Amino acid sequence: MTNPTAAMLVIGDEILSGRTRDGNTHYLAGELTQRGIRLAEARVVPDEQPAIIEAVNALRARWDHVFTSGGIGPTHDDITADAMAAAFGVAITHRADATALLQAHYDRAGLEFNAARQRMARIPDGAALIDNPVSTAPGFTLGNVHVMAGVPNIFQAMVASVLPTITGGQPLLSQSLRVNRGEGEIAGPFGALAAEFPDLSMGSYPFIQNGAHGTNLVIRGTDPGLVDQAMTRLCALFA
Amino acid sequence: MTNPTAAMLVIGDEILSGRTRDGNTHYLAGELTQRGIRLAEARVVPDEQPAIIEAVNALRARWDHVFTSGGIGPTHDDITADAMAAAFGVAITHRADATALLQAHYDRAGLEFNAARQRMARIPDGAALIDNPVSTAPGFTLGNVHVMAGVPNIFQAMVASVLPTITGGQPLLSQSLRVNRGEGEIAGPFGALAAEFPDLSMGSYPFIQNGAHGTNLVIRGTDPGLVDQAMTRLCALFA
Repeated sequence: MTNPTAAMLVIGDEILSGRTRDGNTHYLAGELTQRGIRLAEARVVPDEQPAIIEAVNALRARWDHVFTSGGIGPTHDDITADAMAAAFGVAITHRADATALLQAHYDRAGLEFNAARQRMARIPDGAALIDNPVSTAPGFTLGNVHVMAGVPNIFQAMVASVLPTITGGQPLLSQSLRVNRGEGEIAGPFGALAAEFPDLSMGSYPFIQNGAHGTNLVIRGTDPGLVDQAMTRLCALFA
Repeated sequence: MTNPTAAMLVIGDEILSGRTRDGNTHYLAGELTQRGIRLAEARVVPDEQPAIIEAVNALRARWDHVFTSGGIGPTHDDITADAMAAAFGVAITHRADATALLQAHYDRAGLEFNAARQRMARIPDGAALIDNPVSTAPGFTLGNVHVMAGVPNIFQAMVASVLPTITGGQPLLSQSLRVNRGEGEIAGPFGALAAEFPDLSMGSYPFIQNGAHGTNLVIRGTDPGLVDQAMTRLCALFA
């Protein structure tokens, strides 16, 4: 597989306590898949600097890109920017361009640009800002790590800002067939078909609907002709 | 922090591709938090043996318990049981007790217990089975790793089976009755019976076989006498 790889790092006690259900990983997964980038791993860690540092260092060494969500707001428990600076061994300061963006934003809103809000202008040295069209406070890219907000609509806006800067490989194509039979019934021939197409990925996803067992069969690959060919065979087997 | 710690390991290409949104981590997080167990980390890895082995070995060395979801079904891409055996360096075989459970299940259902379905009886040596009152195919506990299904209602039933064993609570027992009627037909009297036994949990899991509606009715509780008593009543109603 020559497609670029990526990992997601979700940072936040609220996810691990069950208070909040993470939806950013699912969103990112869909966006990356559409662009031919393979999400290879995802992790969730608490708001603790050693855990964040260890995870980001492991992931950035292994994959082409790391996307993080959470911990870049104004409160004391938002420690992601400091953790990233520590992970990369660089300094972190109130940066002039980020400060100017935020100052203008709060001026327009008639709100005080207080010390808590000024924290959001603290950016590790050497990082490039990620545009935040929703609420101004920027994310940043440091090396191959894209540090973004946890609030879903801001996260999504930042993903949209970052993705064009990343070179996508060939898009990963998928086709699927819905079969009104349980997995146990189709597993044998489906596995045999998968073995015939080693360059494709085939997966089965069972469901129950209105009390009936069914399975979605999915074929993925980068070669459209090969995906079509396998899909024709799959339909002949089960459709 | 003296509370027990835990990690979640989600196994499945379908999560990383964005096809399916994982809800099992969020469910587990809530259950653990209620019981004073701290979910310290979560990871998602693809259906690839090296990735599964590396993640489970890292997590089981670090945390008191590891919960996994996904990859224990009948198809060729279900490789979790083999990966766990490899991670622990133990053999894996078709185990007699798991085979007997599944054989009885498919006999009752009038379905062939074929090679694909027999795969679900492959259990690493030294593991303890985890009860699956929904669809029989068991999970297993190997060391401090609890290996469970990815389908949410089965995952949740398995979590309910495991949690009492690690919190020092009483084991949760289950009995089930297969009824050849749709849920709509039995819902009234089944609900009334459930109301008579507030200390038990009663659930219904519909299926369709050969075009006919059926329902698996499951009774769960910690008091064996009470479960027996309710089961006797249930059989009198529907068997």
